[in-house]
Amino acid sequence: MTPSELQEGILHGNPAVQRRAMAKAITLLESTRADHRAQADTLLTGLLPHTGKAFRLGISGVPGVGKSTFIETLGLYLIALGHRVAVLAIDPSSTVSGGSILGDKTRMEHLSVHPQAYIRPSPSSGTLGGVAEKTREAMLVCEAAAYDVVIVETVGVGQSETAVNGMTDMFVLLQLPNAGDDLQAIKKGVMELADLVVINKADIDKNAATRAEAQITSSLRLLGMHGSPDHAAQGALWQPRVLQISALLGQGLEPFWQAVTQFRQMQTANGRLAARREKQSLSWMWERIDYGLKQAFRQHPQVQAMLPQTIEAVAQGRLPASTAARNLLSIQAHNAIP
Amino acid sequence: MTPSELQEGILHGNPAVQRRAMAKAITLLESTRADHRAQADTLLTGLLPHTGKAFRLGISGVPGVGKSTFIETLGLYLIALGHRVAVLAIDPSSTVSGGSILGDKTRMEHLSVHPQAYIRPSPSSGTLGGVAEKTREAMLVCEAAAYDVVIVETVGVGQSETAVNGMTDMFVLLQLPNAGDDLQAIKKGVMELADLVVINKADIDKNAATRAEAQITSSLRLLGMHGSPDHAAQGALWQPRVLQISALLGQGLEPFWQAVTQFRQMQTANGRLAARREKQSLSWMWERIDYGLKQAFRQHPQVQAMLPQTIEAVAQGRLPASTAARNLLSIQAHNAIP
Repeated sequence: MTPSELQEGILHGNPAVQRRAMAKAITLLESTRADHRAQADTLLTGLLPHTGKAFRLGISGVPGVGKSTFIETLGLYLIALGHRVAVLAIDPSSTVSGGSILGDKTRMEHLSVHPQAYIRPSPSSGTLGGVAEKTREAMLVCEAAAYDVVIVETVGVGQSETAVNGMTDMFVLLQLPNAGDDLQAIKKGVMELADLVVINKADIDKNAATRAEAQITSSLRLLGMHGSPDHAAQGALWQPRVLQISALLGQGLEPFWQAVTQFRQMQTANGRLAARREKQSLSWMWERIDYGLKQAFRQHPQVQAMLPQTIEAVAQGRLPASTAARNLLSIQAHNAIP
Repeated sequence: MTPSELQEGILHGNPAVQRRAMAKAITLLESTRADHRAQADTLLTGLLPHTGKAFRLGISGVPGVGKSTFIETLGLYLIALGHRVAVLAIDPSSTVSGGSILGDKTRMEHLSVHPQAYIRPSPSSGTLGGVAEKTREAMLVCEAAAYDVVIVETVGVGQSETAVNGMTDMFVLLQLPNAGDDLQAIKKGVMELADLVVINKADIDKNAATRAEAQITSSLRLLGMHGSPDHAAQGALWQPRVLQISALLGQGLEPFWQAVTQFRQMQTANGRLAARREKQSLSWMWERIDYGLKQAFRQHPQVQAMLPQTIEAVAQGRLPASTAARNLLSIQAHNAIP
């Protein structure tokens, strides 16, 4: 299929045609072949005017917190409200194993077969930045196909939370009602990304959940106190908050979605939603540029030839690190990249 | 003075000659002129075999924690023990203001005039990475001049703590006996860098200091629990700890220096000191390479010509960010940097 045939299928195809076109488009985006990449760029540029109308919801939490159950329950709840729901994933472990464990359709057995849902597992290879790029692009495909809620999930390991936060309108952190869990999230800088913290499995130990809620509320307040003021924002500002739910029992979904809706309204009214998306796009561009520059440098034949002995000399303390950097940079500066 | 004259002065000069050569060498290192930089690289490479014998102590803490008083008291204490002490600084605010507020000799009036001490203020311009590079290089000059304790200080704002941690053998975090202070340090990822946390001004409110000590000890334990195991290390491992001092009254210096000495012995015996320095050198090299690549890219004439309209198109949602990145990268890839 050509890019314009794919575009036509995604924008105007009947359900079966659209679903097939989406799958083919995302596979094209994930290809590393240069000709595929050129077609993918054509397709993306064509789809772009039809994107951006969905609400982009990022969800993160450590393994065992119950993300799949939460997303399945939430997805079915949203479909019942008339939404079309896409679920994407960023699985940092896939960058190591080459295999995708997240977004597996078997984990969401009811949602995955629902005609109003589209579930796509994490891209299964490359760096975290590369995987995130594919997911960002897949999100645009889903939006062009008129999915109006896009959920991007990740497990709470590595830097994947930052990647998810960098492509969504709202970042939700799922926590267990365990003491000390919030400290780990603070340590990793994830707590301060959270627009909403959801304590899942609150039904198991109500007292523990209430203690966790108080503790996290206090942490969020302390973290927010020293945050940098955002002078660009006008109107009412969202204050991160904490909710208790039980995804398994379906309890707490309504207050959760009310909070999300309120967040969206406030962020739209005060201009932060648009500002956040603009900032995300530009950060994404620079991140990919920086990555591309590093790649080109490391693949430069003369750099590759010089690198082993340079690293050895620096490691052994025979060559100052800054001198080594200047030497290597001067190679590339005086030679065109082939 | 030529690089070899400077080297001779630093290595073998009498006190007055050495001090003058050090100042001239560091000024040369801080110069942005290309010919100066080439001379500086020659000098550094010549000095390198005579460096690395000092203990490199990083000290950070928020404004008001009493860093200057602590360093002055500690410096005089160490000189009394027979050490020669150099004090360098990384002042992140200097990258904005172009003026150096840290390392000001007037803040350490006794230490600054002592013949066994060498105090140099923060380099006063450039990016944080650039300032850190100059400080790293100044450290090598001090070591070649046989200063056997090099203290690198920074205020606790921005990323300067990471820079200091990245060039020292031991990172000491000064804290006030205030509740919540440790949460800020955890949030910023500084607490987990700390090899030793020192609660200063413990004399003012002993109860508060004791509460803070208990709280920080508990935080350090929780942070350490989930730390990545270091399989390369052998022998006994250092566990971060907390001490109370009063720099103003000179109380607690002896236990502090005992802890530093014990840390140094353990890290030398288990191989971590050498491993840390090797890792620091290589990180430093890659950091400077990455920075140089970004600089060269941004200064490329065709990139500069294309950038404004590309940024606008990405910000307005007319061009996918990843496509924009690829477009800009292809300019540089097909044109030698002039």
